[in-house]
Amino acid sequence: MTYQVFDTTLRDGAQREGISYSVVDKLAVARLLDEFGVGFIEGGWPGAMPKDTEFFRRARTELDLKHAVLVAFGSTRKAGLDVAADPQLRALLDAETPAVCLVAKSDIRHVERALRTTGDENLAMVRDSVTHLVAEGRRVFLDCEHFFDGFRYDSAYTSAVVETALAAGAERVVMCDTNGGMLPSQVTAAISALTERLGVSPDRLGIHTQNDTGCAVANTIAAVEAGVRHFQGTANGYGERPGNADLFAVVANLQLKLGLPVLPDGCLTQMVRVSHAIAEIANIAPDTHQAYVGAAAFAHKAGLHASAIKVDPLLYNHVDPAVVGNDMRILVTEMAGRASIELKSRELGLDLAGHPDAATRVTKRVKELEAGGWSFEAADASFELLVRSELPGMGAARPFALESYRVLVEHREDGAVVSEATVKLRVRGERVIATAEGNGPINALDEALRVGLLRHYPELRGFELADYKVRILEGSHGTGAITRVLVETTDSAGRDWTTVGVHPNVVEASWHALVDALTYGVARTPAEV
Amino acid sequence: MTYQVFDTTLRDGAQREGISYSVVDKLAVARLLDEFGVGFIEGGWPGAMPKDTEFFRRARTELDLKHAVLVAFGSTRKAGLDVAADPQLRALLDAETPAVCLVAKSDIRHVERALRTTGDENLAMVRDSVTHLVAEGRRVFLDCEHFFDGFRYDSAYTSAVVETALAAGAERVVMCDTNGGMLPSQVTAAISALTERLGVSPDRLGIHTQNDTGCAVANTIAAVEAGVRHFQGTANGYGERPGNADLFAVVANLQLKLGLPVLPDGCLTQMVRVSHAIAEIANIAPDTHQAYVGAAAFAHKAGLHASAIKVDPLLYNHVDPAVVGNDMRILVTEMAGRASIELKSRELGLDLAGHPDAATRVTKRVKELEAGGWSFEAADASFELLVRSELPGMGAARPFALESYRVLVEHREDGAVVSEATVKLRVRGERVIATAEGNGPINALDEALRVGLLRHYPELRGFELADYKVRILEGSHGTGAITRVLVETTDSAGRDWTTVGVHPNVVEASWHALVDALTYGVARTPAEV
Repeated sequence: MTYQVFDTTLRDGAQREGISYSVVDKLAVARLLDEFGVGFIEGGWPGAMPKDTEFFRRARTELDLKHAVLVAFGSTRKAGLDVAADPQLRALLDAETPAVCLVAKSDIRHVERALRTTGDENLAMVRDSVTHLVAEGRRVFLDCEHFFDGFRYDSAYTSAVVETALAAGAERVVMCDTNGGMLPSQVTAAISALTERLGVSPDRLGIHTQNDTGCAVANTIAAVEAGVRHFQGTANGYGERPGNADLFAVVANLQLKLGLPVLPDGCLTQMVRVSHAIAEIANIAPDTHQAYVGAAAFAHKAGLHASAIKVDPLLYNHVDPAVVGNDMRILVTEMAGRASIELKSRELGLDLAGHPDAATRVTKRVKELEAGGWSFEAADASFELLVRSELPGMGAARPFALESYRVLVEHREDGAVVSEATVKLRVRGERVIATAEGNGPINALDEALRVGLLRHYPELRGFELADYKVRILEGSHGTGAITRVLVETTDSAGRDWTTVGVHPNVVEASWHALVDALTYGVARTPAEV
Repeated sequence: MTYQVFDTTLRDGAQREGISYSVVDKLAVARLLDEFGVGFIEGGWPGAMPKDTEFFRRARTELDLKHAVLVAFGSTRKAGLDVAADPQLRALLDAETPAVCLVAKSDIRHVERALRTTGDENLAMVRDSVTHLVAEGRRVFLDCEHFFDGFRYDSAYTSAVVETALAAGAERVVMCDTNGGMLPSQVTAAISALTERLGVSPDRLGIHTQNDTGCAVANTIAAVEAGVRHFQGTANGYGERPGNADLFAVVANLQLKLGLPVLPDGCLTQMVRVSHAIAEIANIAPDTHQAYVGAAAFAHKAGLHASAIKVDPLLYNHVDPAVVGNDMRILVTEMAGRASIELKSRELGLDLAGHPDAATRVTKRVKELEAGGWSFEAADASFELLVRSELPGMGAARPFALESYRVLVEHREDGAVVSEATVKLRVRGERVIATAEGNGPINALDEALRVGLLRHYPELRGFELADYKVRILEGSHGTGAITRVLVETTDSAGRDWTTVGVHPNVVEASWHALVDALTYGVARTPAEV
């Protein structure tokens, strides 16, 4: 029997604070999830949310899913209402999905205090709703809300909900850790107690966890190890409070650690791409430290290890990063020694190992700079310029020499805030003076520099300052502290590179990073524009 | 026997990409960890890192720890070197800490390929190093690097390392999942196999996990459930790649879910404060979705559940947020926003609830400002000024009116970088023009403002700009992005307050924060200086 990978990014995951998908976003996310190979995509709650009703309507013509079955979510019928007369169940059927996931209360306290009905009526609501949808030809999953809390408080009642849903024809009954308070051993114990009590196989059950103990992934794995073959999660663990189980980590663990074939062949390598694309659509910065898919998931910093990583990368990576579509990275930091600097250079196509003197000079220089607050771990382009400058005949040509610059910020009598910069340069033997305004001192300086250089370097037109980050180092000394600036630049070919500058003065630090950015970009784009 | 909560935020946690603590930072983090009640603080690697040597030197006179024992980290002696002649072990002893944590290779592949020595010599290195440090009166912990991978590959050799260290007098031998690839069930199985093989009790062992499968917390819990009573982790899970086990989630789970008394009484409620303060020092934005301590950890979208949550909050929270120093938050509705603003004001001693019109105006203004990127979470003083300005007769007097300012940064022909600011103000009816230099534009502006105001407000002499933070919002639009500045000011009485400014121009954003800082400070110090 196969595993059911059930994604709820578009329904439960959308509860994450700050997420608000348009219908077009939802369609795009669904396509990505399908490319990743999930078996089920829960798209939303038709009827309750107009946007979701619209999503299911458009999905019928606009979604062509290869792997996944589309699922509409809703709740069991209202207390005291005939199932055929319940408009919410009507909307569920109108969504015309092959499968439906119903949520039911399974903790008697929530039945009585939140739903304000009786335990018996709640069981009838489960029975009627499942029966009705099955009769209409739907595959039905039933989410037992607050399953674990309910089972602990009154296991007889919670078991009765599970039993009722299975008897009525639910394909799987899903144990939900709605408040997210479980630990793996508690999940294992509850599943064992439930299956023993009801005499059902765990493969009739499903698992849905939340990350409030930081154990959502482990709780899901524990359930699968206990025989459960249907698990719910969301892309990147998005969800309410600390989120849902991160489907990427769950799937990677099951495939790579337990050898369970939960995804179709060839899909696992899509993981990083799908993860980042969904983050883009959700407008949430990707978590660089996320397991498996983060940019830092396979980044190594320690100098201690770098020499050995060269010899045998798999001794230092728990899996081959390529199997999930990720890469290993070596970071250049104050903790790094010569070995990691050589390794990093090789990554950049520069043979430092063959030039031991240059390697010594680069290592010395990196250590000095890092002691002064520089950091190259996020600034590959500045690092490359530094290495090249020490390699015979490899130094990047400096596109200009600075004579002076001046930046002015004025808050005028009328309240207007104006920034203006003037640069005086020597460019290919010519003296250039250029002035520009900007919406801040750094922006003005960047603009003035471009104005001054553009005639000699037309390729600058394609460069765009894509990101600018400031960090104050040793902030406990007030504004006198050192400033570190990172600048990310892109060119018209879609390439991007990051440079760094450090100085007590934020303008001078930014200047360094801007100049490195232009130098690197010009050296890389040799007059081909 | 008690549990050993072993924190390695300052050693292994500092491997996180982007973290670079100063010695002052390290001392501050150690104090916070001690307030949180950890039993051991691993402070760094003396000898290998000059900053860490300095940390241990200053710790002797500047750290007065209530709960924690300070631990120096180092590696076993070099292959082929006499233990007494090893400079690295000498530096460990010179750190003069009561306890030492040694790292040893315990995977035969790493011994042979990375360390390039024999299995026997590695065992001798473990034996000699532990014996030597114990003879010098140190409590010794031994971290078995790559324990789990090694044990899987060659359990006889890895077991021999454990056995050797215990026989030599190590207090605990720590099983490290260095590559972070384990799942809880695999941790449980390995501990059972090891203890059976060696005939030792699991309480002689420790656990150190990394989060590469997203299971670091669960793996730690699994080890404790298997009888291990020493566990290592870091504040907020900081660490290399996806990080270490988050000590906050581990401790909260053990105390609140398993009822194990791992912290001294009264410490658990410090968790949120300590977590956020360490994030500030590390200059990493707190993870709002972090289990237990995140701002969203107990945040509920209102609506369906709102009334039920009010009646019985514990039905919707897996623990009472107050026990870890957190709060429940209700999102979305305007009433909730207003309620929390009233609550916050009451915290500051201002009665907004008694002035419904003012409360409406403040709520509206906060919402508008927050939509524009302002954030008052870390800027109580700016928030208080805003609330006061809407309360009849409570507004803080503005100490001056701005006419204009001008800031100039020059990089001169001789390479000197000079910043100069001029402010034109009206102070108590008098027109004041003042100019000052600084080591950056913001510092110059701050100085000019003080020069201009000092004659009228001599108390400014006691104010010091203690911290200055910049964050770029919506960084994907280049230097045109919005800048948020936080300024922390202290006065001669040791009080401190934080203010905020937001503007596309970093100078103007800083100006707002500086002016709020002076206004608040002057209003608070009525001519008593």
